[in-house]
Parts: sequence; structure tokens; C-alpha cells
Amino acid sequence: MPVSLLTVGRFVGFPGFVRPMDSYDRTKPHRPIERSEKSLVVASASRSFAAHSPARVVVLVSGSGTNLQALLDAIAEERPDAFGAEIVAVGADRDGIAGLERAERAGLPTFVCRVRDHGTRDAWDRALAEAVAAYEPDLVVSAGFMKIVGKEFLARFGGRFVNTHPALLPSFPGAHGVRDALAYGVKVTGCTVHFVDDGVDTGPIIAQGVVEVREEDDESTLHERIKEVERRLLVDTVRRIARHGYRIEARKVILGHD
Amino acid sequence: MPVSLLTVGRFVGFPGFVRPMDSYDRTKPHRPIERSEKSLVVASASRSFAAHSPARVVVLVSGSGTNLQALLDAIAEERPDAFGAEIVAVGADRDGIAGLERAERAGLPTFVCRVRDHGTRDAWDRALAEAVAAYEPDLVVSAGFMKIVGKEFLARFGGRFVNTHPALLPSFPGAHGVRDALAYGVKVTGCTVHFVDDGVDTGPIIAQGVVEVREEDDESTLHERIKEVERRLLVDTVRRIARHGYRIEARKVILGHD
Repeated sequence: MPVSLLTVGRFVGFPGFVRPMDSYDRTKPHRPIERSEKSLVVASASRSFAAHSPARVVVLVSGSGTNLQALLDAIAEERPDAFGAEIVAVGADRDGIAGLERAERAGLPTFVCRVRDHGTRDAWDRALAEAVAAYEPDLVVSAGFMKIVGKEFLARFGGRFVNTHPALLPSFPGAHGVRDALAYGVKVTGCTVHFVDDGVDTGPIIAQGVVEVREEDDESTLHERIKEVERRLLVDTVRRIARHGYRIEARKVILGHD
Repeated sequence: MPVSLLTVGRFVGFPGFVRPMDSYDRTKPHRPIERSEKSLVVASASRSFAAHSPARVVVLVSGSGTNLQALLDAIAEERPDAFGAEIVAVGADRDGIAGLERAERAGLPTFVCRVRDHGTRDAWDRALAEAVAAYEPDLVVSAGFMKIVGKEFLARFGGRFVNTHPALLPSFPGAHGVRDALAYGVKVTGCTVHFVDDGVDTGPIIAQGVVEVREEDDESTLHERIKEVERRLLVDTVRRIARHGYRIEARKVILGHD
């Protein structure tokens, strides 16, 4: 049964994924948060951006930003209102990367939050969360962001922080998804768009795309083909989430429909 | 560099997969076993049945035998010489199952090897290996065979004992591949044809087929669609192995070509 966000005061999620909502967010018409009759742990959650379309998206990058560019291109071509989302800022964990240049060329505000500028990892995590929160995003997208965020970031953006991974999770999590898949000898691999939780690539899966491993593949050729699928999958997923919302039951992400 | 089987005297395989060849097998023209220059552990192995086509296949079943039927149908339709393989016997770990009836209808010899008829699991394993060996198979196919074989069986048939699993390994190994995939919330799953090693569904992967998980799926509907793909994949894999052979480098199975 839907209850108002103000009543719940927490983002009620899936196992290992119960996050307090950030206070600034309580003024927004996210709806409806559902509470399972059984327990909080298996409670479901849903989210719709329809009431304030286009949804506000902050993108985090660490490198070339090709996934960011795919999002920028799709939104520019379709226009934010039709796409259902707009990118309101791009953040990075380092200076001088192509991803930030792409954002600047698109006329978007950018920010950099470097670990070494903060006394502790937790302090960095808080600063990153603050920097992102300043843009009041509905959704945060990791587009090749290479840092693992901490408790504070997840407390604020858990359940709406989207990541991509170059393997069919739960196979081959971690930093070497393509290399590990090749070494294992799988015949199909792919990419996964998922919500970030506090594990490494363990969050609820939103969408997956399949890529066949070819006999002659090395890590580079296989990764290139995965990236092609990943760009399309990420764009499609952000569009669909923004337009139609989603709900999460246990670990299952159910996207909204037309 | 290929060396003769008689010289090697062992099936030189992939990590955790070094198996002595059964003596009866040394008279057969399996070729060529390759030894890596680095170490036995990463040595490669290859196998061709071209010299004694059609390859002799023993199929093991525990239940309805629909995968067996798919093989029987394909071989009957294409004829063994063209298919590249013939089923020479069907074994089971229990009486009175549809899989055995299918074999009998096809005029094939059958045998039953029940755990409870043997003092120990090892004794059962040896008896099963003997029963299979009596038909001098080139390839042994587990078509829904629900028992885990032991050391003796793998010593004789490792590297040519093929199993199917209803998930995209290495995700969701074990007895509940379909249920576990649904519970995890993956958006794609499938089936894997692999060589059996001494782990649970950990052996080198020969082929994989992909099945999309639908929003309305339960274990039964999803499993049905996986089985459809699995039957085709198994038939295609046995045909291709039998016709063109294969080699294994580290964990990577490379099928032969026309």
C-alpha cells in the first residue's frame, strides 16, 4: 500500500538497500513508496518522474565520457521533454578528462571532486554527495565513474544511482569484467545497467545486453563491442526510467510502461 | 605441438582438469593432444572424431529425456553419417523413466545404474563408468542426468563428458539455476553446454544460448523457454563436436570448423 514519502521518511528498498532519503528530496513528488506487509527488508519501492518531467540527471565520469556523449546526443536529438530527462551537471573525480570537455562543449556545469583534496575517504564521499545534491538530481548516472562511493552518497542517492558494468552480472563483477569473462571462456557476455548498492556490482539489475564472444576476441575487441551495446542500453534505460518510472520488488526491477 | 595420445598417456587438460585416459581408449584415433610449453596446468587438448565417424555417443538421463529425444530426432532425420554421431546406448540412475522408454522406442540398448544398488557412492561411480565404457563411447552426454559423477567416471570420460545447465554459467550453478536467476533479478539468462569437471557446473564452456527474462515469468515459464533453446543448443553442439572436433586452451573451448 502506497504511503507518502513524508510518512515513511526513508527510501524503503530491497535487501541490504534501505536508505534514508535526503531531506531536500522530501519536497519532490517522488511516489509512491510501498511498504511490504511482511517486513522492511523485502519491502518494495517505486519511483516516477512523470510529475516533474524532464527528470534532472547528474552524470559522473572518470574518463573519455563516451556513455555521457551517447546520453547528450540522444537528449539533444529528441529534446529533453520528449526524452524525459535532461542532464543538469557532470561531475568527475579528476581534472582534465575528455568527459568534462564533452560536458563543457554541451554548455553544462561541471564539478570535480578529488579524493586527494579531502582528508579521508568519508570526507570525500560527503563532499561528492554535497556536490551532486547541489544540482537536485532525480537520477545520478555513473558513466564510467571509477570510484566506489560510500555510505553518505548511497544514503542520499541509493535507489536512483545507476551504473553500467561490462559483463552479465552476477558473472564477472569488479574492475576486470571483460578480461575475467574471456579468461573463464564464456561464449556470451554483455553489459548490465544496475542500481548501485553497497556491494561491488551487486545492486538490482535494470537492464542487460548480450554480446557474443568470438573465437578471435581479445580484451580490447570484445570490450569495444560491449561498449557499443552498453551505450544504447544506457540511453534506453535512462529514457525509460525517466519517462515511465520503476519499482523494485525484492531484487527485481520492474520498469514502467507506456 | 601435437604429440600422440600413446606418448602422453593422459588427457592433458585445463586447470583442475587433468584426467588419465581410460586404457580402452588408447586404441582409438583421438588426436592430437597438445602440451603447452609453459606448464601442464595450462596445457591444451584437442579431439577429433573425423577418423571414426559417426562418433559413438552414450546419453545419460534421469527424467523425461526431452534432450535425448531432440538428439534422437536430429540424428534420425539427418542420418548418423551426416550428423556425425550416433547414440549407441542410453543409461539412467533410476528405473521407469520416460527417458528410458524413448531409448527403447528408438531400439537402443539401455542400462540402469542405481546408487542404492551399490555399497558406496564410489562403488556406484565405478559401476556407472564401467557400464558406460562397455559401449566404447567417444562422447558421453548428460541429458538431464541428475547425479554428480565421481573421480573414476571423470578419469575415464573427463574432457568428453558434456552437460547442459539452465543458466549462463558461471552465474547460477547448482540445482536451481532457473529459480536462482529469477530471484536475483537478472534480465537475461539462458543455458550452457559445458564439459563436466570435478566442480559443480564449473567445467569449460562449449556453447551458450540466451533467453530473455520476461516481467511476468515464473520459474516454470522461464524454464520452458530455456529448455527450448537448450535442446537446439545441445543438438548443434553435439553435431559440431562430432563433425569437427574441438580443442581446449586453458579454459577456452575452441570448436573445429568446416
